[in-house]
Amino acid sequence: MTKTKGPKVALIVGAGDHLGSAIAKRFAKEGFAIVATRRRGDLTGLIDEIEALGSRAYGLHSDARNEAQVAELVEKVESDIGPIEVAVFNVGGNVRFGILETTARVYQKSWEMCAFAGFLIGREVARRMVPRKSGTILFTGASASLRGVSGFAAFAGGKHALRALAQSMARELGPQGIHIGHVVVDGLIENRSTEELFPDLVASKSEDGIIQPDHLAEIYWHLYQQPRTAWTFEIDARPYSEPW
Amino acid sequence: MTKTKGPKVALIVGAGDHLGSAIAKRFAKEGFAIVATRRRGDLTGLIDEIEALGSRAYGLHSDARNEAQVAELVEKVESDIGPIEVAVFNVGGNVRFGILETTARVYQKSWEMCAFAGFLIGREVARRMVPRKSGTILFTGASASLRGVSGFAAFAGGKHALRALAQSMARELGPQGIHIGHVVVDGLIENRSTEELFPDLVASKSEDGIIQPDHLAEIYWHLYQQPRTAWTFEIDARPYSEPW
Amino acid sequence: MTKTKGPKVALIVGAGDHLGSAIAKRFAKEGFAIVATRRRGDLTGLIDEIEALGSRAYGLHSDARNEAQVAELVEKVESDIGPIEVAVFNVGGNVRFGILETTARVYQKSWEMCAFAGFLIGREVARRMVPRKSGTILFTGASASLRGVSGFAAFAGGKHALRALAQSMARELGPQGIHIGHVVVDGLIENRSTEELFPDLVASKSEDGIIQPDHLAEIYWHLYQQPRTAWTFEIDARPYSEPW
Amino acid sequence: MTKTKGPKVALIVGAGDHLGSAIAKRFAKEGFAIVATRRRGDLTGLIDEIEALGSRAYGLHSDARNEAQVAELVEKVESDIGPIEVAVFNVGGNVRFGILETTARVYQKSWEMCAFAGFLIGREVARRMVPRKSGTILFTGASASLRGVSGFAAFAGGKHALRALAQSMARELGPQGIHIGHVVVDGLIENRSTEELFPDLVASKSEDGIIQPDHLAEIYWHLYQQPRTAWTFEIDARPYSEPW
Repeated sequence: MTKTKGPKVALIVGAGDHLGSAIAKRFAKEGFAIVATRRRGDLTGLIDEIEALGSRAYGLHSDARNEAQVAELVEKVESDIGPIEVAVFNVGGNVRFGILETTARVYQKSWEMCAFAGFLIGREVARRMVPRKSGTILFTGASASLRGVSGFAAFAGGKHALRALAQSMARELGPQGIHIGHVVVDGLIENRSTEELFPDLVASKSEDGIIQPDHLAEIYWHLYQQPRTAWTFEIDARPYSEPW
Repeated sequence: MTKTKGPKVALIVGAGDHLGSAIAKRFAKEGFAIVATRRRGDLTGLIDEIEALGSRAYGLHSDARNEAQVAELVEKVESDIGPIEVAVFNVGGNVRFGILETTARVYQKSWEMCAFAGFLIGREVARRMVPRKSGTILFTGASASLRGVSGFAAFAGGKHALRALAQSMARELGPQGIHIGHVVVDGLIENRSTEELFPDLVASKSEDGIIQPDHLAEIYWHLYQQPRTAWTFEIDARPYSEPW
Repeated sequence: MTKTKGPKVALIVGAGDHLGSAIAKRFAKEGFAIVATRRRGDLTGLIDEIEALGSRAYGLHSDARNEAQVAELVEKVESDIGPIEVAVFNVGGNVRFGILETTARVYQKSWEMCAFAGFLIGREVARRMVPRKSGTILFTGASASLRGVSGFAAFAGGKHALRALAQSMARELGPQGIHIGHVVVDGLIENRSTEELFPDLVASKSEDGIIQPDHLAEIYWHLYQQPRTAWTFEIDARPYSEPW
Repeated sequence: MTKTKGPKVALIVGAGDHLGSAIAKRFAKEGFAIVATRRRGDLTGLIDEIEALGSRAYGLHSDARNEAQVAELVEKVESDIGPIEVAVFNVGGNVRFGILETTARVYQKSWEMCAFAGFLIGREVARRMVPRKSGTILFTGASASLRGVSGFAAFAGGKHALRALAQSMARELGPQGIHIGHVVVDGLIENRSTEELFPDLVASKSEDGIIQPDHLAEIYWHLYQQPRTAWTFEIDARPYSEPW
């Protein structure tokens, strides 16, 4: 990679699922240079799609739960590509176990993916944005961010902690010119793993009873482009037919 | 008024302040025919501005707290102008009194303006939208929608009740194809009365420490144009420098 | 009535159902003089029960939604019986209608019973307590105090407004030595009308799947006797088997 | 230790501070055998106090963040002392750092103390209680359980996660006869470390402007003795003069 002048940089952490990819493409459509990361797995398809939109795209493997890797990632992006204008933290991992069957490993992994990784990314990116008094950091939440539910103690714990992080950062960094947002996704997002995990549930939904990633990505774009006299901290989204 | 074919209709109830006007103009820019209402006071300036944007505009005086007037308003719009595609309820009235000094009249008036009027408008518009399985109704909330605060028992009561209405309607009507949204405005909105009521507070704010109505209006537009696989019920907005 | 020296006075507004009666008896057991009010209907059975416990009891008909009657009630109690040490506001009225079928009358009546009456009682009692820098006012909420639900726009509106009132009063009057509490009852309370209204639901519950009024009354007593270094504002209660 | 028949057992995890000690003594007064644990530090003073009340008391050093130690602790109590009737999780550790200065170590330690330890204790105790269809588990929360605050991303993250755990457990285990409660402590609790950490703040408070541990302990006792027709999940407590 060589340093480039010009396009603003959007860092999408957790670009493996359909939501992360959709957000990456949404910002690419606006001319952003995209840095898409995931821990492992293919990123070339996404990179090709973005480049076909006429934007620069970089796919990087990086474990967001690893402090050294996160520091290296942010340093590399800032040095080689450009200042991060917007960062989206989209890592998570839903698991369902009764409390008695929840292992310590599962409980800890959920927190590491949902909250600890969010902390590492959020703090490291904020360290670059605060001196510039500018930038946007968006976190992806879930209905489990707002309430604990039977069978989801681990996932809800991680998502609650992530929301606490986002809110604490918003209150501290908002007055310093950094926009922090939290998107509460309430409902299934259409993607391959959803269909594999919940085939009956997916089949029972009408075509638009499942969240389309492209539609959700509009919310991230909306939040990013808000002027600072009217910043949103939290916004929810669910399919029209979702019971709640 | 003669019935017209063509443009979609946006009904803005409470178009007297700068927010209501800004929302009206935002939808006008997208080609909507605008029906702007307020209880009394001038609407010609707003109507002129909208027509200068090339859109049709109708200014009507109507008391949203009066059931007969609300029924007449909705009937007139639907019969003479066109089916209401989106309705925005933007009536409210902030008052501050210690609890011992809050008169029964003040307490009741706050509820009538914030909640009862919202119920009348919401129900009457929903009666038209439900058979069409389509439409959007957006309510304007405040930080007092979420918490009671010393000195604001009356205003918080009205705003809490309005949020309960919006949430109840969202849960009932969402699956029927009606999008209900609630915008939580947390902070001062720039307008003449704000400057008159809180001159020192306004003076203490930086230029962008007060919500610009035009910026807030973007949120209403964003919610309106969401596809139904990813509908927002609630979104907040505050100036970057607002403590919370 | 002649003025009496001695026992502390508990004013129970809405003593017609089993919860109000249970609270009245709970405080009577501790030696309080009880003033039990309801709008209409028999109070002699309750008065007899309380007197059998060895406490003074007064049954008064008073419409809590009527400002003049509330003022007269509080004046009469304070003049003839003694200073009100604790007041419990227990009026409410659950109704269920789809939003399109909710009449303006139903919507307004719900608010009058749940919120306006609570405001009148709360303010009038607070006017006596504030100069004494002492006293407790407890409000009865419901799960509809916290969230709007399909079919309950009217009831949820009233209960949300009551919670806003309680919270606003707590924040204003707590530092003045007045303890304000809000009890969120989540579930059916055993009483005759519950059995009449929801016979199948009641029949489907196990013996202890419905809230026993006596058990709930303990919560009110607990809140009352808290020292002011550790005051509770809000507490919820539900049967062990209640889904939520 | 030899197995004893008779008194019910209360397990107080985190009995090092004044609140944990006060809760231990409150249950001892009711005849419970007390098992008081902390990671390190003296427990003999507390044990002596409890025995002076005429109850059995056991002080054990155990690290609640260590899965093996938690399993061993619960096994030892159940085998040698008796079935755990009530468990109180009272571990926590408030720290304050701006987000940029929050180290990964601090962020992780806060979560381990507040949430992971709560999970280990909660799950391990629940494994014993579920087959008995009986028991109470109470968790200590804070105002940071409900909202993220500038400077408290780490502490709020841990406390939010603990609340999510408690709520998930309540919903899953309540119908199985296990009572889960969450006590939200909003304000300073009087103890030596509070005075050392916040000397000016403590000095500025009136005598009863700081929570007395004995008063707070009454709340835990109240929750424990609730019959299951009216169980509380959440209750808050603050000094009368606390702004919120």
